Amino acid sequence: MSWGVFDSGVGGLTVFKALRESLPETPLVYLGDTARVPYGVRSVETVREYAREAAVFMSTAGVEGVIIACNTASAVALDAFRDVFRGSVLGVVEPGVSEALAATRRGRIGIIGTPATVRSDAYGSRIRALRPDATVVSSACPLFVPLAEEGWTRGEVPTLVARRYLASLKEAGVDTVVLACTHYPLLREVIAEEMGPAVRLVDSASAVSREAVRRQQSAQWQRSEPHNGARDRFCVTDAGGAFASVAARFLGAPIPSLETVHLPHSGA
Amino acid sequence: MSWGVFDSGVGGLTVFKALRESLPETPLVYLGDTARVPYGVRSVETVREYAREAAVFMSTAGVEGVIIACNTASAVALDAFRDVFRGSVLGVVEPGVSEALAATRRGRIGIIGTPATVRSDAYGSRIRALRPDATVVSSACPLFVPLAEEGWTRGEVPTLVARRYLASLKEAGVDTVVLACTHYPLLREVIAEEMGPAVRLVDSASAVSREAVRRQQSAQWQRSEPHNGARDRFCVTDAGGAFASVAARFLGAPIPSLETVHLPHSGA
Repeated sequence: MSWGVFDSGVGGLTVFKALRESLPETPLVYLGDTARVPYGVRSVETVREYAREAAVFMSTAGVEGVIIACNTASAVALDAFRDVFRGSVLGVVEPGVSEALAATRRGRIGIIGTPATVRSDAYGSRIRALRPDATVVSSACPLFVPLAEEGWTRGEVPTLVARRYLASLKEAGVDTVVLACTHYPLLREVIAEEMGPAVRLVDSASAVSREAVRRQQSAQWQRSEPHNGARDRFCVTDAGGAFASVAARFLGAPIPSLETVHLPHSGA
Repeated sequence: MSWGVFDSGVGGLTVFKALRESLPETPLVYLGDTARVPYGVRSVETVREYAREAAVFMSTAGVEGVIIACNTASAVALDAFRDVFRGSVLGVVEPGVSEALAATRRGRIGIIGTPATVRSDAYGSRIRALRPDATVVSSACPLFVPLAEEGWTRGEVPTLVARRYLASLKEAGVDTVVLACTHYPLLREVIAEEMGPAVRLVDSASAVSREAVRRQQSAQWQRSEPHNGARDRFCVTDAGGAFASVAARFLGAPIPSLETVHLPHSGA
């Protein structure tokens, strides 16, 4: 039994790492669409097409379950992915929402993510469906991704940027903030400082990893074959970036090899 | 006779506008690869493949000359584009270098661009070939593109970011700076302020437009058919962004229509 982790880029390695630690016997396949990252600034149609192409790839790779670590794809393309891929598919929205609802004290929840995630209102509509009296305030933070990728995660610039993006959440008095983008945990410190110690931060990537482990440990998945030494695969659509070095930093050891793959058009 | 303008996104509209004003009788085709922007963070191989796909499109579109407005593609994929497209192809590097060499007083030239453009050293090697005693200092400024797209072009954040990126150029005492990315003219004010009034700024996009007009007015191009009311075409690979509104702002009038096109794999 094996899992795939699909992300638009490098951010989904946080999910990969959590899975690797929790499920040491399970072979994993990582796919980062580094040739077309970031998804968060694209249209719904484009993200759905990219998700279908990733689903074709994951079907061919022979994994039985896929975690969509990318919030944008989870928010707008979960069904498109499921149209193509026949195994279990977990997005990050549902686990993130569950943890936010468990964490909030007064039902005032902030969502920060890419423009596409925020526009989709995927988190907000799900939260309101489960808890109609909740107040949800969203803010798109497009500069957070390049800041995280540039490594500018502390100091004056990220603090000023965070102040600007988080002002509406502070004004609304949220008590919980969902980091609805895999990159944002890298900026956790400045976000926490800006929101203050009383505000809880929920990380969607951690939440979905825990959900995957729960599923793996459930009855249905107990029949799975052990790892048997099968190696993890790391696949990207563009090997030019810092993927290998970031992966080594995330995982604590160099990755054995990095495959460059070409995603086929889905034909949809 | 018609020109195409190819850019990774919306930035090439600065070139389009300059051409439109200088060549009112020439039909133009704009192609922005908005589904895969930005190119500047990708590998050389990926940018070359995207350029070949754009070249297939421009061949089909029937234009006779193409300006590659994207600095990254000009720097690393001009020959790849020319392998596919049989007409005239102008990149931004050569015109930018010419203007920089004309502008510099002491031969100390700064280049600011995307990581891919800076890594390629396309500007530096061309400058040194034409003027061996020149000193070239380059700085990659990956946050400038998202700042420009976010509209944060003045104030504390862009000033602090510019200060950090331009420090090495100031220390080196450059007298001329090439804005080697179509987005950077939007940040011209903070860049100029940071560099000081004695430093000249050269804009590659303006430089290539002037070069295209010179070619159009030369003997070879005089045989061209007049515009005859043929409409300009605006083509993007993702229509979800702010392309139409930015185009209207750049061009002073709404664009007649926006075509979403699917670039074919080049087969290379």
